[in-house]
Amino acid sequence: MSTSRMRAEIGEQPGALRRTLEGLLPRVGDIADLARETRQVLFIARGSSDNAAVYGRYLVESHAGRLATLAAPSIATTYRRKVDLDGVLAVAISQSGKTEEIVQTMEWAASCGARTVAVTNGHGSPLAEAAEVALLTEAGDELAVPATKTYTTQLAALAVLGLGLGADVDRADLDRVPDEVERLIAATEASPALPEIVGELARVPGAVVSGRGIAFGTALELALKIKEACYLHAMGLSYADLLHGPIAVVDAQTPALLVAADDGPTLPGTIALAERVRSAGAKAFTVGGGAGLAGAGNAALAGPDLPEWVAPLGLIVPGQILVENLARALGLDPDVPRGLNKVTQTD
Amino acid sequence: MSTSRMRAEIGEQPGALRRTLEGLLPRVGDIADLARETRQVLFIARGSSDNAAVYGRYLVESHAGRLATLAAPSIATTYRRKVDLDGVLAVAISQSGKTEEIVQTMEWAASCGARTVAVTNGHGSPLAEAAEVALLTEAGDELAVPATKTYTTQLAALAVLGLGLGADVDRADLDRVPDEVERLIAATEASPALPEIVGELARVPGAVVSGRGIAFGTALELALKIKEACYLHAMGLSYADLLHGPIAVVDAQTPALLVAADDGPTLPGTIALAERVRSAGAKAFTVGGGAGLAGAGNAALAGPDLPEWVAPLGLIVPGQILVENLARALGLDPDVPRGLNKVTQTD
Repeated sequence: MSTSRMRAEIGEQPGALRRTLEGLLPRVGDIADLARETRQVLFIARGSSDNAAVYGRYLVESHAGRLATLAAPSIATTYRRKVDLDGVLAVAISQSGKTEEIVQTMEWAASCGARTVAVTNGHGSPLAEAAEVALLTEAGDELAVPATKTYTTQLAALAVLGLGLGADVDRADLDRVPDEVERLIAATEASPALPEIVGELARVPGAVVSGRGIAFGTALELALKIKEACYLHAMGLSYADLLHGPIAVVDAQTPALLVAADDGPTLPGTIALAERVRSAGAKAFTVGGGAGLAGAGNAALAGPDLPEWVAPLGLIVPGQILVENLARALGLDPDVPRGLNKVTQTD
Repeated sequence: MSTSRMRAEIGEQPGALRRTLEGLLPRVGDIADLARETRQVLFIARGSSDNAAVYGRYLVESHAGRLATLAAPSIATTYRRKVDLDGVLAVAISQSGKTEEIVQTMEWAASCGARTVAVTNGHGSPLAEAAEVALLTEAGDELAVPATKTYTTQLAALAVLGLGLGADVDRADLDRVPDEVERLIAATEASPALPEIVGELARVPGAVVSGRGIAFGTALELALKIKEACYLHAMGLSYADLLHGPIAVVDAQTPALLVAADDGPTLPGTIALAERVRSAGAKAFTVGGGAGLAGAGNAALAGPDLPEWVAPLGLIVPGQILVENLARALGLDPDVPRGLNKVTQTD
């Protein structure tokens, strides 16, 4: 029986997603109004929120036709240099809304000419108060250090942001997400692939985690979770970057975890990567990607039955369960990784 | 005695940098003319060139006050989506100038409204031919798979790009770079810290490599080299990102390599990070950062005596020598890592 706080919070995601979407879908018009005089998006985030921003970046570029990028907070907080941000919509993402670096960087962006949106679970937080539009997630309190429900509800907020920016997607897809996440939690825990992959990862020093495009943020988030909760050397890489060098590290002691939505233009390349990894003598474990990716790997966890643009809201869930199980298999407490606090302050 | 091709090419860098700067400094006006109608920069690159782009990004933002970002090539080549790039200067960086993904993404940028610059060692290459302004590096043929002189000459081209964008720096600093690199090669090979760090890295499965701001690209490039030539699990992280999670992986079996210029606003934070790493029971090896960073670590390789904005052109050099020595200590051929070709094609 699992008793970790992290596992409980994984199970709270369907409700958290439902409440967040109910709260934020009526805000699409507010976002559209604010964004009207802007041409591009600048995300401001760290840690898991940064991985959420990677989803936002690909969503905005691939479906809303706007250039989107991730800010380098040190320009604001360390170099203290003004940059021309006229025409930029700055979107700051922080679970707590209290991380000073993120608050300061959003204020810097506004002083450089940007319009501002906050995505935060911190109702009444400094970040929420300082932004022109605050998109509040409804995750409730998150006590385990590894973010789960605050991460997936950030993704939900970013999907709503995409709608506000005019993304060419069907917003009705979002309505299916909470139930699909609920189904996926049960399916993952019943899958014989779960103990198999946990067993393999428990005996290696590291792994490569890869995905592309809209699923790239999911790969980065899964790698971060494996690093912070299981202390493995997990490298999150886009599949193209993996082929430009680090493919050399994949071997019998370094399996690859590959993530993909069940459809979309990046799926064929991810299937080809699974084959490449196996031909290098390494194991490929897959999350999502439908029957095609499952058939190309050594063991497969099914992903959500959702279109690519919203798939990341569910695709991380089998990975969260994998991480929670792997931490316990390694004798670690998934709720309290060494060296970390819930609210991280960097200058 | 060292006989690798990689070592020979490391030694060719002073001449390559001298020729490249002589060729490109007269082009500052061409860059300024092209950039006049643009407001920001979009870099297009993969692999080591991507790490060069990270230097370019921080240089442009911190010293030229323009927003700068790295493109996601999959938007162009996989999603095939048009994005509004009016007012954008697209800078494509490729050693060979033949990587189809980079050529296609630069052509996509032009079709989206961007002006184009190529940085390449491929004289007459498709990338050089397609760009409005081609900044050709003069590295000569590079035969070892790990890029050395093509990488540092790319950095030289990006420093010249910064001048063309009006960076608030002293261009005379560039004149000192070739001699300083020459001095640094000799000093690194004579340093007792070199065999000490090689010996430590030869017995661990992985390492964390960190730096911040203008030195962040150097950290990423050193991590990439360690991965591709030595097969270690080397994670390149900004120091802020390291504190948001992956600090948990630093332990007695996972040392940190920390890089910094001898001056600049990120140095105090890097020194603090060395102390944090050591308090976590891990070793901190340092490259550059002057006496302050050297004193905070377990073993130190000196960096170049150059101001922060041009320091990356020399700061990678001790790392290159470290990687070449580490590969040989591990019984590997640094010139031909497994699984890699010199020109990488990704779709």
